[in-house]
Amino acid sequence: MEKRIAERLRDPRLADRIVPAHEAASWIQDGMTLGLSGFTRAGDAKAVPLALVDRAKTEKFKVNVFTGASLGFDIDKLMAEAGIIHKRLPFQADPVMRKKINQGEMLFVDQHLSHVAEYVRNDVLSKIDFAIIEATAITEDGLLIPTTSVGNNSIFIEKADAVIVEINLAQPAELEGLHDVYDLAPQGKREPIPLTKVDSRIGQIGIPLDPEKVKGIVITDASDSPSTIVPPDEETAVMANHLIDFLRKEIKAGRLDNTLAPIQSGIGSVANAVLHGLLVSEFENLEVYSEVLQDAVFDLIDSGKVRFASGCSITLSEEKMKAVFSNLDRYKDKLILRPQEISNHPEIIRRLGLISINTALEVDIYGNVNSTHVTGTKMMNGIGGSGDFARNARLSIFVTKSIAKDGKISSIVPFVSHVDHTEHDVDIIVTEQGYADLRGLAPQERPRLIIENCAHPMYKKQLLAYYEEALKVGGQTPHVLEKAFSWHANYLKHGTMLFDHQYINS
Amino acid sequence: MEKRIAERLRDPRLADRIVPAHEAASWIQDGMTLGLSGFTRAGDAKAVPLALVDRAKTEKFKVNVFTGASLGFDIDKLMAEAGIIHKRLPFQADPVMRKKINQGEMLFVDQHLSHVAEYVRNDVLSKIDFAIIEATAITEDGLLIPTTSVGNNSIFIEKADAVIVEINLAQPAELEGLHDVYDLAPQGKREPIPLTKVDSRIGQIGIPLDPEKVKGIVITDASDSPSTIVPPDEETAVMANHLIDFLRKEIKAGRLDNTLAPIQSGIGSVANAVLHGLLVSEFENLEVYSEVLQDAVFDLIDSGKVRFASGCSITLSEEKMKAVFSNLDRYKDKLILRPQEISNHPEIIRRLGLISINTALEVDIYGNVNSTHVTGTKMMNGIGGSGDFARNARLSIFVTKSIAKDGKISSIVPFVSHVDHTEHDVDIIVTEQGYADLRGLAPQERPRLIIENCAHPMYKKQLLAYYEEALKVGGQTPHVLEKAFSWHANYLKHGTMLFDHQYINS
Repeated sequence: MEKRIAERLRDPRLADRIVPAHEAASWIQDGMTLGLSGFTRAGDAKAVPLALVDRAKTEKFKVNVFTGASLGFDIDKLMAEAGIIHKRLPFQADPVMRKKINQGEMLFVDQHLSHVAEYVRNDVLSKIDFAIIEATAITEDGLLIPTTSVGNNSIFIEKADAVIVEINLAQPAELEGLHDVYDLAPQGKREPIPLTKVDSRIGQIGIPLDPEKVKGIVITDASDSPSTIVPPDEETAVMANHLIDFLRKEIKAGRLDNTLAPIQSGIGSVANAVLHGLLVSEFENLEVYSEVLQDAVFDLIDSGKVRFASGCSITLSEEKMKAVFSNLDRYKDKLILRPQEISNHPEIIRRLGLISINTALEVDIYGNVNSTHVTGTKMMNGIGGSGDFARNARLSIFVTKSIAKDGKISSIVPFVSHVDHTEHDVDIIVTEQGYADLRGLAPQERPRLIIENCAHPMYKKQLLAYYEEALKVGGQTPHVLEKAFSWHANYLKHGTMLFDHQYINS
Repeated sequence: MEKRIAERLRDPRLADRIVPAHEAASWIQDGMTLGLSGFTRAGDAKAVPLALVDRAKTEKFKVNVFTGASLGFDIDKLMAEAGIIHKRLPFQADPVMRKKINQGEMLFVDQHLSHVAEYVRNDVLSKIDFAIIEATAITEDGLLIPTTSVGNNSIFIEKADAVIVEINLAQPAELEGLHDVYDLAPQGKREPIPLTKVDSRIGQIGIPLDPEKVKGIVITDASDSPSTIVPPDEETAVMANHLIDFLRKEIKAGRLDNTLAPIQSGIGSVANAVLHGLLVSEFENLEVYSEVLQDAVFDLIDSGKVRFASGCSITLSEEKMKAVFSNLDRYKDKLILRPQEISNHPEIIRRLGLISINTALEVDIYGNVNSTHVTGTKMMNGIGGSGDFARNARLSIFVTKSIAKDGKISSIVPFVSHVDHTEHDVDIIVTEQGYADLRGLAPQERPRLIIENCAHPMYKKQLLAYYEEALKVGGQTPHVLEKAFSWHANYLKHGTMLFDHQYINS
């Protein structure tokens, strides 16, 4: 065995399992269910899924694909294009897959990221035939060391009939020791999760492999796909300032101190940019307890603002990836990667009292949030972990720009066209216009505040007109149901949510 | 001091604090915030609120009222009628108060029951001036022994400027020892909650009182208001059978055994009736981990079906109240009452893996649930604990009759007019028509199943017609947004959701 492979594949019992990717892919049969590693483009199994796509050129089959979250390396795209997916869960973010989902050509189950492992553990979903898991190494005693994400690897390996490991030589060997894998016993036989601090180590550095179950090991050599986040812009900088203003008021009110509370920040450009804004804040010794660790987290570590970050995956831009992975030792005492069941567990989120920052697609005048469905019907990416965090955080903050498509869409609407987070779970809404603090407010106290502080000026009158008409209907949550979705309908028909003053004069 | 009072008020430091209710009520000033004991009619402070209502005859003032859940003894009604409430949270169930809320005459904040204590602890809501808490007794060393509910008593006492205790001689002295009061440290400084079994005792039997803060003690002598649940009927019996069928299939699939898993059952007649159905099931050694313990739980204990029940309150019919409270010793090793923050804590609900049964007002074809708002605008009672449980349970079950008002309302609708529980949090829907198991299903797999299994025959065609039209729009979650609320609009205009075949022919 080549030396650089031997250094990674250290369990002698598994030395004879190395196979080419296409051979491993050939074991997968029509109708099977696969559990793939991968969480927001990081640590995804790469070679076997691509070999499977290749096989689809000459053969017709479909499989169910369960993952941690979105995959990188165009795998979601290629699998979707190849038409080999019957059902996919719990999250995706690929334009081609999105299209196939919305055309009804594949099934997509949009799940809370913390729920997947419980469903798999309880045998509620279809049985997993193959777990296909990327590894940095397999230790002498059979511990699989994950790479840049942990995701659902543990539970997939535990419940799968057989395991295929992809040892990726391109992933830095220094990842070993970074992970903290803690497995939950079945419900009802479970002890409290002993994690009480962001940097608590409660598990082991890898996932125990049953050598009998390891059917094949594929050697790969390709980096993760870099993230596609766009850099902060003027508006996201303004949003970050609003958020910082809010946090300052919390400190002034004695509800937080200068170290804030552990921060969670959702995937995507806006959340990343808002987090980036903390670089120029006076807050110090910050902690991050999140699912994805994006560029901003490492910038905050580099600047000394963040003292520790716990996540489930590291998803970086190309440039940042080079900088971080060539200096991983520098970060090792400041980082932990955990299974998504732990990073997103309600028990931990509530215990630590997180400040949770997630992106909204649209928000309504009462504070309900749509994170997933464009005009109520078309899936964007999925709810991801936002529901795990929003429900249980100390501060549940949603950020969105007040308009989209040059103002043709208002992100503040009378009634969100799909509800992912109910008004019970939304504390603060931030747009580039300002923020609305909804905590302790009854529904009737919310619309004017949200409209005044968060809506774009071009939509304020139209929003107020709706609310005033709704007030005539009355009730705890006034609405004119016939017109609740008229903005969306207008957009679908005329390409804009703006009624050109027709509405307010009618 | 009278002997029967001395037996209850045992802390000598507090012997001089006894005052008449009207005197205690006179301390409360316009604009103050009160934290009242009371959870679903049980263990509510009775005398001081009524004295406050009395005072309103000659004086104008308003207060904020925070409670555990709904109050009994017409207190919510009388306070609402007297117009003395500015803001009320987190739950109510009184017709008069409901009317005032929906007329916009008082503010109502509808909160997850587990969230209230965190908000109070974090000083997010207005400061509590007086905690007014019903007690069975105050022990020699100053422990307040709650009565038939624990609610938010602990956190109200801890955070209030001053405490008024109502020692209720009509509450059985044998309640002492039944409670298990565990207080959480602030977020970030908190240990795991050590509760791992339904019958775990983790706290003390009462709430420590700071004698300096006890401004007055009022002696009262009135039982809780009995519950108003209606007995099981033919339809609820059928619903119970569907639920039992489902649970049998879970056992057959190896996902549960004959002792099931700890059961939570929401407040109200339907949930009580469905639970009642377990009496004639083959399940054994059942456990209950719930918020309200209603008649059915005690019937199940009496029959030997339930071995242990943990709750936050005991709310019984008049007859059952007599039977239970005259034989409390018989139940003492089978019962625990806990703070609502513990009974409803996501950490515990997820750890124990509850089977959660709650009532829906309406359900849509994708599995979203409305628990609170009639035709989207009018508050019924509030979300209560249903969100705490539905999100975190092993099995999140919602029950509802398929029609209401003699068929003028279908409980299964195209789009719920208010979302309390998103489709991510709803596993099983049960009506008298049957049940739909939504676990692991993509949106497109849900409508036909829900319509076929749960909708009333008179609405099936109309539901299918909507869905078929929606399919032409397409997307992950097909909808015709302009028509999504047309059923509700039709009901508001014409008194029925039925379109008389106009819809399906149009």
